Amino acid sequence: MAYDTILYEVRERICTITLNRPEHMNSYNSQMCQEINLALDAADSDDDVRVVIFTGAEGGKRPAYCAGFDLTVDKPFDFSEAGFHNTRDTGGTNALRIYAMRKPVLAAINGSAVGIGITMTLPMDMRILSEDAKLGFVFARRGYVNEACSSWFLPRIVGLSKAVEWVTTGRIIGAEEALHSGLVSEVVPHSRVYARALEVARDIRDNTAPVSVALCRQMMYQMAGARHPMTAHKIESSCFYYIGTAPDALEGAASFMEKRPPEFKMSPVTDMPPAYPWFPEVPFPKNIQDC
Amino acid sequence: MAYDTILYEVRERICTITLNRPEHMNSYNSQMCQEINLALDAADSDDDVRVVIFTGAEGGKRPAYCAGFDLTVDKPFDFSEAGFHNTRDTGGTNALRIYAMRKPVLAAINGSAVGIGITMTLPMDMRILSEDAKLGFVFARRGYVNEACSSWFLPRIVGLSKAVEWVTTGRIIGAEEALHSGLVSEVVPHSRVYARALEVARDIRDNTAPVSVALCRQMMYQMAGARHPMTAHKIESSCFYYIGTAPDALEGAASFMEKRPPEFKMSPVTDMPPAYPWFPEVPFPKNIQDC
Amino acid sequence: MAYDTILYEVRERICTITLNRPEHMNSYNSQMCQEINLALDAADSDDDVRVVIFTGAEGGKRPAYCAGFDLTVDKPFDFSEAGFHNTRDTGGTNALRIYAMRKPVLAAINGSAVGIGITMTLPMDMRILSEDAKLGFVFARRGYVNEACSSWFLPRIVGLSKAVEWVTTGRIIGAEEALHSGLVSEVVPHSRVYARALEVARDIRDNTAPVSVALCRQMMYQMAGARHPMTAHKIESSCFYYIGTAPDALEGAASFMEKRPPEFKMSPVTDMPPAYPWFPEVPFPKNIQDC
Repeated sequence: MAYDTILYEVRERICTITLNRPEHMNSYNSQMCQEINLALDAADSDDDVRVVIFTGAEGGKRPAYCAGFDLTVDKPFDFSEAGFHNTRDTGGTNALRIYAMRKPVLAAINGSAVGIGITMTLPMDMRILSEDAKLGFVFARRGYVNEACSSWFLPRIVGLSKAVEWVTTGRIIGAEEALHSGLVSEVVPHSRVYARALEVARDIRDNTAPVSVALCRQMMYQMAGARHPMTAHKIESSCFYYIGTAPDALEGAASFMEKRPPEFKMSPVTDMPPAYPWFPEVPFPKNIQDC
Repeated sequence: MAYDTILYEVRERICTITLNRPEHMNSYNSQMCQEINLALDAADSDDDVRVVIFTGAEGGKRPAYCAGFDLTVDKPFDFSEAGFHNTRDTGGTNALRIYAMRKPVLAAINGSAVGIGITMTLPMDMRILSEDAKLGFVFARRGYVNEACSSWFLPRIVGLSKAVEWVTTGRIIGAEEALHSGLVSEVVPHSRVYARALEVARDIRDNTAPVSVALCRQMMYQMAGARHPMTAHKIESSCFYYIGTAPDALEGAASFMEKRPPEFKMSPVTDMPPAYPWFPEVPFPKNIQDC
Repeated sequence: MAYDTILYEVRERICTITLNRPEHMNSYNSQMCQEINLALDAADSDDDVRVVIFTGAEGGKRPAYCAGFDLTVDKPFDFSEAGFHNTRDTGGTNALRIYAMRKPVLAAINGSAVGIGITMTLPMDMRILSEDAKLGFVFARRGYVNEACSSWFLPRIVGLSKAVEWVTTGRIIGAEEALHSGLVSEVVPHSRVYARALEVARDIRDNTAPVSVALCRQMMYQMAGARHPMTAHKIESSCFYYIGTAPDALEGAASFMEKRPPEFKMSPVTDMPPAYPWFPEVPFPKNIQDC
């Protein structure tokens, strides 16, 4: 598969997707949207991939992960063909694809990330930030609105008031505030961002059971919106029934007792439990009231 | 409009609502409840208002934003007329009115705030706190329960465990804990509280598009309770369809390219998108089971 | 009532439940699950109990609150009899029982807590941690999945991204990170953990109204999953109608005015409002899609 706006590389069972428009500070457009979704499909269905890392190509005039939607082109948002009911925010399709991933997704934010540059990372499991990067939910300063399902993700990550403050002011957020608020997990020097993401990815790869990771990840995202803990109890119970006596659980217990590294064999591509993903797929609704 | 318990002033397109019972530490009563709601109606429908700031009148014996419900009067809570099914917590009507605002609302908490004094600020977008103020969800120490929809807002702002801890113990919270937990955005000296809120309000007024702010604010609050990110995707997509080619978005992109301040023209009073506010209005239910 | 795996003691109106398998680092098994639920039933219905404290027995080879599910036995998870639809995760039954408590529950985590050792504490109202304890949501490293309704509780306590990071990596969490993220309320020296929990319990016992505490606690947990703040407004309004003119509220206001300690008389066992617990009991669903 050839990509124009991203790079896709699998090495050591770790897939790196690099936003690759350094001459435009890796800014986003509809082609990048489509290529990201294709790349995620490829990574999710490839048993050779354990973990996905997103990062930005180096070489632009300033360090950038992604400078937002590319507004320099004519008509960046032309929805006339799709019409009101069918128009889908591009970033939102990426967010929902990441939400549904069976593999963990890490963001190595190696430079500034504004607009879609930061909102696309919210459904990722961990954000590692360069200490000199600037972040911003700048939409209201451009006459737009926040997107990429950030209305759902951001208040659940940093709390409701911080989320509202950031989108209402559109102001720039530095690394210290990003760390303190929980927007990012770690802040490291620019030269260490990708290397640190690689360390985390290798730790996951070497020490965790792939099906367990897929199920833990999915349960957490799906239950973050659930009404009652009973729903979590049902899903967790069914997962435990399936996995509690499966080969990887036996290997997990045995390797723990024998104080040796585990050798997990089950695959999140082929060995997910029967009921997964638990709920019927949610379609894109025609009317908002159908949500 | 003449108010007895509050002051209402619009200056520089910023509306300041001052709780004005300094001889009673700005304590709250049912008249204040009604006047706050009238003032919010006025501010929300006035195109000359971009931002609302709440603060407390100075001049009491101790600095106070609001010392809670005024318990010194006879029968502070007399619900006999309304009856069980129709009685509405006064603070809750304020909270729901703030929740529905199209303008950002800032709290300049220039002194202690307990009971309704602090819960009324939870649906506000940003809380700026005086460094020597004391806060407290003291209800359980008085034989009451927390109100003003704080059961919904507080766990989404500071996390579930911190919220439960505070209402269960009813203990006093100092500025440092308030800041660390995310209950407030900033802590400043007493003399700087209102001035700092004014700085933030001016930044919003001068640099953001009013309709964008209204939509971002509303999406964040409404999606904080949504089951699935698809709902956010639908609402964000419809907003982007509407606003992505609207005059303010063109002005936002142009001013950004030309590195000049934007001049936004659209109004949150008259120019909201057709589908807004997206869902049918939620009535006050007769029975709890109808919720 | 005689217990084998726990100790149950009521003193000074404070109930202490001690996980009591120190020779196995207080590790958990299905008998402990059942005994915890019986102990919670006893504490919840006993008017002599105001607060519950969980802690771990001292005397093991290393300080431990609970080292997780006891994997040293043959077939730790044997679900064959119950079958897919009826199998219930043991930890989840404890979590739901704690969720429904009318008394506050404090965790005195006096040593390491991993797996069910930490997830069982998530529905507790406050976690006080020993400064040298290690915590871990280690499930994915053993080939299991997280349980005890932690998919519902954890993202609401520490935020969605931190929750996903912890279950995806399964890594060990130290006291500093636990405190900073909000996973625990306080970190104290090992020798102070239980003593500090006792201080908090005495403060609640001496200064709060038992029915108020029960209602505040329940409203917060139930509304943490609610779609709209109107639901909170209805429940809070009905509680205020009931309690606003009840004896404990009159005593609360009077003692506050008279600057004397309150003497509350109402009981969470017998004096809860008529509509409580507000919603029909949620059964364990046969199919996940019924959730």
